[in-house]
Amino acid sequence: MHTADLQSPALLLDDDALQHNLATMATRLPGPKLRPHVKAHKCTELAKQQAAHGHTNFTCATIREVEGMAAAGLGADLLLANEVADARRLGVVAEGGARVTLAVDSEATISAAAKGGVREVVIDVNVGLPRCGCAPEDAGRLADLARTKGLSVRGVMGYEGHLMMVLDQVEQTARVESSMKKLLQAHGDVGGDLVSAGGTGTHRVNEWANEIQAGSYALMDSQYGQHQFGFRQALFIEASVISVNEPGGWFVADCGLKALGMDHGNPEMAGPGSVRFCSDEHVTVSIDPDGGAPSVGDRVRIVPAHCDPTVAYHEQIWLVNGDEVLQRWAVDLRGW
Amino acid sequence: MHTADLQSPALLLDDDALQHNLATMATRLPGPKLRPHVKAHKCTELAKQQAAHGHTNFTCATIREVEGMAAAGLGADLLLANEVADARRLGVVAEGGARVTLAVDSEATISAAAKGGVREVVIDVNVGLPRCGCAPEDAGRLADLARTKGLSVRGVMGYEGHLMMVLDQVEQTARVESSMKKLLQAHGDVGGDLVSAGGTGTHRVNEWANEIQAGSYALMDSQYGQHQFGFRQALFIEASVISVNEPGGWFVADCGLKALGMDHGNPEMAGPGSVRFCSDEHVTVSIDPDGGAPSVGDRVRIVPAHCDPTVAYHEQIWLVNGDEVLQRWAVDLRGW
Repeated sequence: MHTADLQSPALLLDDDALQHNLATMATRLPGPKLRPHVKAHKCTELAKQQAAHGHTNFTCATIREVEGMAAAGLGADLLLANEVADARRLGVVAEGGARVTLAVDSEATISAAAKGGVREVVIDVNVGLPRCGCAPEDAGRLADLARTKGLSVRGVMGYEGHLMMVLDQVEQTARVESSMKKLLQAHGDVGGDLVSAGGTGTHRVNEWANEIQAGSYALMDSQYGQHQFGFRQALFIEASVISVNEPGGWFVADCGLKALGMDHGNPEMAGPGSVRFCSDEHVTVSIDPDGGAPSVGDRVRIVPAHCDPTVAYHEQIWLVNGDEVLQRWAVDLRGW
Repeated sequence: MHTADLQSPALLLDDDALQHNLATMATRLPGPKLRPHVKAHKCTELAKQQAAHGHTNFTCATIREVEGMAAAGLGADLLLANEVADARRLGVVAEGGARVTLAVDSEATISAAAKGGVREVVIDVNVGLPRCGCAPEDAGRLADLARTKGLSVRGVMGYEGHLMMVLDQVEQTARVESSMKKLLQAHGDVGGDLVSAGGTGTHRVNEWANEIQAGSYALMDSQYGQHQFGFRQALFIEASVISVNEPGGWFVADCGLKALGMDHGNPEMAGPGSVRFCSDEHVTVSIDPDGGAPSVGDRVRIVPAHCDPTVAYHEQIWLVNGDEVLQRWAVDLRGW
């Protein structure tokens, strides 16, 4: 099958680029040094590729991701790197034989973990991003509390999300060090084996965590493309040109707001043309004077600005080699 | 069932507000004066409510919406208000007995319609938004071409999308009139019964079209809430508070970028607090000094900034009366 036979808009994953990205990361952060974050791709078939590259411990963002990974036989060590108010579904997964570890950052989330039947937790520490995580100096108290509730405390996690897009590597290293010192301070009080942190944006410089929770590296997007990481753009949306307005200098393709995570702004064209704006089911593109105008029915490829919320709109990822469709992978971890 | 029993984030539709919005619009634009756009809600159960209010002709944005509406018995008069490069699936729907009308704006899309087995079209006219639509002076030629291909031409459509957020009604009226004069000029050359245009943002002032393609009015969002339309906010996301940082002045709930269309920016809180930013699965909210801090496990409600791409992330809409869950409606028109 060729990509032109796919209903557009179609989410494509370039197999060459994917394999390059997986191999590159597996060299940099082999085995358990990487705990791939499945929130980026929400796809157990892709997670199996990551496991084949030696990473068998995974990070999840939702309960459904934990359930789906366990059901797919990938439950050797699943960290839900997020707090939940009700952990009962996680208790069921753990009861079924998967190893489930839950982030907690308060008395209430520790209680929820214990009540829900979760047996292992990490203490989530705020390392500078205004989001979840306890104060570093409170981590030891929470770990003690968790142990009194019968929970096993595997260590700490912290997400330096505010530093992912610091492009200068020297500045980023200094700021990540400062952030991670808070995590190490907490780890000193908490104990346990895990010091889990990071993401694609900081994976090169975060040498303080002993495992990195990166996900986007496998797919990439135009935002992370600003870094010089050596990863290749693997994720595209293939759209059909449906209208061409040569006097106006634009064309329209059928890839819109319901096919694209838009929080990082407009996507970019993989070929000639520059994106003007997106509507629910359209992208309006300025015709490149050198590239010329396409024709109705032509296929164009678009690079999402943010891979995670883009993938979450799609039922499937089409693994491709150029225009050849290799496989259909279900985006089977969507929803909550 | 109560909303607190729903897995969060949960997409809620307030039944009182919905019924108010449906009744208000049915009074303003009764029967065929409104051709409700299903792209806003992607839900055949909600479309049935619109039909019960007298609107039995519908607007669709995708082939799948047309297929789903026909399969749900709502195929009396379906306008796909968008060009397609391949109309074969639409031909199958028409063959099955539904009335399917397709927008065309070029020789290529006319050929696609004829080749695909579609029998009825409207000429899509560019009325100022840089998107689809032919030049007004070219509409007559395209209508003639369509007729030579055996297609029945039902009239014209044009979408003044660039005027939806002109808040001053006098200015908006003048600009919509100017835009619609282009459509009427084209209609003079094309003929047919339909002059289809408009949306929720212009439904009060567009008196030149003989049917209005509004959809968002049923749900509403914070962007359209800037208008003084008399519609009520009906769509919410119920999220669970998962982390509270009182010293920092924020809390975190589990409604993030995969639950919210973000092209219009951040959502708003329905209750106390102001949204700082969203992450993949989180919203960070500044605690309102007067409203006080919530507790972990509390439910909060969030108003999306843009209803259409928000709904498209969700598997279901929960129809509610306050905290009581009345019905589960599948968002069954998602995808393409």
